Amino acid sequence: MQETNEMESGMPENVVYVGKKPAMNYVLAVVTQFNNGARAVTIKARGNTIGRAVDVAEIARNRFVMDTKVQNIGISSEEITNEDGTKSKVSAIQIILSK
Amino acid sequence: MQETNEMESGMPENVVYVGKKPAMNYVLAVVTQFNNGARAVTIKARGNTIGRAVDVAEIARNRFVMDTKVQNIGISSEEITNEDGTKSKVSAIQIILSK
Repeated sequence: MQETNEMESGMPENVVYVGKKPAMNYVLAVVTQFNNGARAVTIKARGNTIGRAVDVAEIARNRFVMDTKVQNIGISSEEITNEDGTKSKVSAIQIILSK
Repeated sequence: MQETNEMESGMPENVVYVGKKPAMNYVLAVVTQFNNGARAVTIKARGNTIGRAVDVAEIARNRFVMDTKVQNIGISSEEITNEDGTKSKVSAIQIILSK
């Protein structure tokens, strides 16, 4: 849905990909981007880390960047290729926080 | 955000709470509600099961009720009381699928 953002702006998007590290690592990444002047930050995750992405968004906006709001949340399905060459579908989420 | 839905309609909301069972159990609950005439079904989850709620929404709309779309997604923080009486914050998600 938001695949064109990078092209539209001509600048790299402010994206934080949420992985297996503690949520606070990603919260700090989000806060840093806002402190560096970003007007919006996109938090992305898929599969097991989707719940953590929601934690990151909630912690960031409730405790650190209280002047931001959830601008948009999108969910989608992505196809990933496993190590053995087979393909699986995995759910993904994208949360945009903006000032 | 959407706490008033039940009062507004005067009818019980069509809500599926996603827990620890396999995603397909909840997918079937969603599909059943649409088949029984619901125009919208709300999928709710919190904490660890948030990722599964996204799976449920994606599987339902991509494989079973293809005439539905994601109407709205909201995230929030809820306070829960632990067994020892202390309180913790937990993230929650609410996904509304509608025809």
